[in-house]
Amino acid sequence: MEHAPYEAKVRAIKAKLESQIPKSLRLPASTLNNLPLDVTSIPRTCGLLTEAELTITELDATGVLECIAAGKLSAVDAVTAFGKRAAIAHQVTNCLVDFFLEDGIARAKELDAHFAHTGTVVGPLHGLPVSIKDHQLLAGRNASGGFLSSFQIAKEDCQMAKILRSLGAVFYVKTNQPQSIMTLECHSFYGRTVNPYNSNLSSGGSSGGEGALVAMKGSCMGVGSDIGGSIRCPSAHCGIYGMRPTSLTQPMVGYLGYMHGQDGVDPSTGPMCASARDMTTFIQAVIGTKPYLDDPSLIPLSFVPPADIGARPLRVGIMMHDDVVMPHPPTLRALKAAKHKLEAAPGIELVDYVPYKHDEGVRLAHELYFQDGGKRVHEVLDSTGEPILPLTEWVIASDKVKDHDAQGIWKLFYDRNVYRQQYSSHWNASNIDVLLCPTFPGVAARHDTSKYWGYTSIWNILDYPGIVFPSGLHADPALDPIESSYNPVSPSDAYNHTLYDPTIFAGAPISYQLVAKKYNDGILLAAQMVVEGILRDMVPASPIYKL
Amino acid sequence: MEHAPYEAKVRAIKAKLESQIPKSLRLPASTLNNLPLDVTSIPRTCGLLTEAELTITELDATGVLECIAAGKLSAVDAVTAFGKRAAIAHQVTNCLVDFFLEDGIARAKELDAHFAHTGTVVGPLHGLPVSIKDHQLLAGRNASGGFLSSFQIAKEDCQMAKILRSLGAVFYVKTNQPQSIMTLECHSFYGRTVNPYNSNLSSGGSSGGEGALVAMKGSCMGVGSDIGGSIRCPSAHCGIYGMRPTSLTQPMVGYLGYMHGQDGVDPSTGPMCASARDMTTFIQAVIGTKPYLDDPSLIPLSFVPPADIGARPLRVGIMMHDDVVMPHPPTLRALKAAKHKLEAAPGIELVDYVPYKHDEGVRLAHELYFQDGGKRVHEVLDSTGEPILPLTEWVIASDKVKDHDAQGIWKLFYDRNVYRQQYSSHWNASNIDVLLCPTFPGVAARHDTSKYWGYTSIWNILDYPGIVFPSGLHADPALDPIESSYNPVSPSDAYNHTLYDPTIFAGAPISYQLVAKKYNDGILLAAQMVVEGILRDMVPASPIYKL
Repeated sequence: MEHAPYEAKVRAIKAKLESQIPKSLRLPASTLNNLPLDVTSIPRTCGLLTEAELTITELDATGVLECIAAGKLSAVDAVTAFGKRAAIAHQVTNCLVDFFLEDGIARAKELDAHFAHTGTVVGPLHGLPVSIKDHQLLAGRNASGGFLSSFQIAKEDCQMAKILRSLGAVFYVKTNQPQSIMTLECHSFYGRTVNPYNSNLSSGGSSGGEGALVAMKGSCMGVGSDIGGSIRCPSAHCGIYGMRPTSLTQPMVGYLGYMHGQDGVDPSTGPMCASARDMTTFIQAVIGTKPYLDDPSLIPLSFVPPADIGARPLRVGIMMHDDVVMPHPPTLRALKAAKHKLEAAPGIELVDYVPYKHDEGVRLAHELYFQDGGKRVHEVLDSTGEPILPLTEWVIASDKVKDHDAQGIWKLFYDRNVYRQQYSSHWNASNIDVLLCPTFPGVAARHDTSKYWGYTSIWNILDYPGIVFPSGLHADPALDPIESSYNPVSPSDAYNHTLYDPTIFAGAPISYQLVAKKYNDGILLAAQMVVEGILRDMVPASPIYKL
Repeated sequence: MEHAPYEAKVRAIKAKLESQIPKSLRLPASTLNNLPLDVTSIPRTCGLLTEAELTITELDATGVLECIAAGKLSAVDAVTAFGKRAAIAHQVTNCLVDFFLEDGIARAKELDAHFAHTGTVVGPLHGLPVSIKDHQLLAGRNASGGFLSSFQIAKEDCQMAKILRSLGAVFYVKTNQPQSIMTLECHSFYGRTVNPYNSNLSSGGSSGGEGALVAMKGSCMGVGSDIGGSIRCPSAHCGIYGMRPTSLTQPMVGYLGYMHGQDGVDPSTGPMCASARDMTTFIQAVIGTKPYLDDPSLIPLSFVPPADIGARPLRVGIMMHDDVVMPHPPTLRALKAAKHKLEAAPGIELVDYVPYKHDEGVRLAHELYFQDGGKRVHEVLDSTGEPILPLTEWVIASDKVKDHDAQGIWKLFYDRNVYRQQYSSHWNASNIDVLLCPTFPGVAARHDTSKYWGYTSIWNILDYPGIVFPSGLHADPALDPIESSYNPVSPSDAYNHTLYDPTIFAGAPISYQLVAKKYNDGILLAAQMVVEGILRDMVPASPIYKL
């Protein structure tokens, strides 16, 4: 009863959202009441999309752009196809927080008219439908900073949205994120976004709406944000591509939050998309606008890979586990397969990488996130009567965080700086260009169990850029039996071990994470194509999809 | 009496320092007891230096390097000449905290032998005598972090010293800094460093030992550090060249401090030297070693000026005052002269720059320096019984700083970020490449009166790089009368106005500060040569000194 005003507000917001999905795009009750665990085939089977729309939505973003720029596809047809598929995706995963396809079509018409009139595109993202995360302000659309308390209809675009619009992007949906935006799952006052491959599993978080939407091909280019794994975790869980660039290189002014000024671990923002080349397409387009001219916190770096990257062997480290929590069998199987292929690949020098005190780095990151001991989280919850959700409660529990005075914060920052220095020396001594490692201690998590961030947050505290990409493999009970006589190496490991059950995770995608040293985003983007090419027997950087 | 252990320790440290000055380099009592206010001519008149040594020490660093690389000057002769002159400088300004010419000569012998044997230099700083500030660790030498409590004989070199050594630099002296390293004067447990041009005035701070030493030509290349004006203020007061690069671009690991982890305003380090070209010589040599490979906090930027810098007009802003404190008449006279010359110069577009809320920025900077309300300063003082000095007391007085909890620090950081954003927009709208402005609200300060940092600290909170260079003009009672009917615009302004007396400042050098936007250090270095060439009727970038 005490939450009545909160619940009334939430009901109204959700009712409005549902009303925005046109009747023509509604799945029948017979479908909705009998959903399989894996809903990825529903867009194709439901009959709401034309064959042409299905074909368009199977393109990656770079493919969409190429088709539009070649006059083979209109911007209106592109956003219509992705918008319709997004509506379906939402009904089966709960991935959206706003739907405004008509706005997208209106903008796409302008772009098509420009193209028809001039024969040229307005920019490198001309006509690309782009989905963005709830906390990223888009003028006139829903937005919240992780809690109902900051729910608003945005008055203006965030800097990223302005830039993407200027490059030709078309917005049509916004996507769900979890309460607090500080969990590796996706459960907010809009409800829970589930994994398209298995609704008993999480889409990951915090950019879980993007993860589910892109996996459903309701978008080929989403914008996520990541301070502890929030781009990489949902990209891994949903089997898509995602990049967390080095922080302070991408525009983030106008992203809502509730701890602004917490500069101990810097957030970053980046693409969640349908192919490896899409990440380069996005990053180079955004950087090309020189966002540092408008945001003085950004560093003017070009991300050009070093000239010798193809002329010498690529030194790839491989890390099967971090000495703290052992990944579940499917993840280990994929890593072993990768090791096998990389060892045999010409042009690759493979290094068995030894992790350097990841437990200490992960602990420092967590303490740095909530320097006030979680007080602010309680304040914003209390301001609307929003009930705290289990993973929010877990993330600020007092055994993990504490309140700090000024000198306590100095010490924390100093410890962080020393750790970064030591880690850098360790990485240098390992003499690797990039590191292949898990993204998470398993495939997509069971709901409300994501309590080990170490495979992503370690790179946040170090600020090493990371890319997640699909292995092409899936969890398989026949290949991934439980190791029954396992001896856990830590309490987190023991907990993680209890979560594994081969049948529960069956079919979940298995992904890899590739990491480079801070500011080496150019090397990372180039190396990822080389490594993925080897692991998936592909020709690197070739178009994967064709209209 | 309660300070007896403190005083005994200080006496022993000072006695040891004085004993390191060889008898052969001592000025006679008749000189020391009858020092003029302006001691800059004493090295030439005292008879302790040969004509050749005087000629060598009149070279700038780039000139010294050219002569050594051409085989016209030995490294031993170079460090001997500067070392002897440094000993004299110390006796008349109290600028040193350590003197070890014999070590320098020993290293110079090795370098000369290498050159004789190979005909090549070991690096771009081969044989250059370099002086460094007390808090910068040099193996085996005195060091302190602003208080007696951290006095030590250093066990190893700081990263900067390692790099400079690897480039061929020769160390021979370390220089004084003030208690707390957070005042714009230079008074420590080693005593007060006075201005070579007028011992009633301050050498400036915190790198005041470097300022006085370089002005006395006891060094042509010093290393300072700057978080609120500590390179630029003493460079201005002593009439030398000094640069504060954008922070996190130069190596600072192994610089002592007492608030490590205070990341609200980042310090920087840079050259204090004898010519404009010396700054480029130093910066490019250091950056050329890629210090970011060893220190992960550093940003890999090259500082190359944009290709079009000479092909289009240079847009130079000029700011006579900051709307908070009006500079004294000598400084305003030099700025008016600069405006006159720049208006007439071809290739320059002069803009009357309007300051943007400098009072707010300066207040934020001060609050960010001492986020604990000054508690740490009292703790380190109390640990040895070191008495607090007047400017230390002033800088942490409770009307300027306060203690913060975690959320208070977040707010402070957030306010800083917003201010930086607003300032950047203002600067962009002004459409200038560089800004010419005062360094201080007057020429060198009277002792214990430096209570307005706004002309330097504003650029620290914004992290805009700055260069100080001499105008060639000096304070002159005939040209700089007091403005008797002045109406102060702020309490700081009223205080500053009371300090002015034309006769007291007579002869003090007048300097300019040139500032560029964050990361535009390459533009700044190039533009400074252009602007100085115009203001001093020089051919830009030409060798100023010749052996």
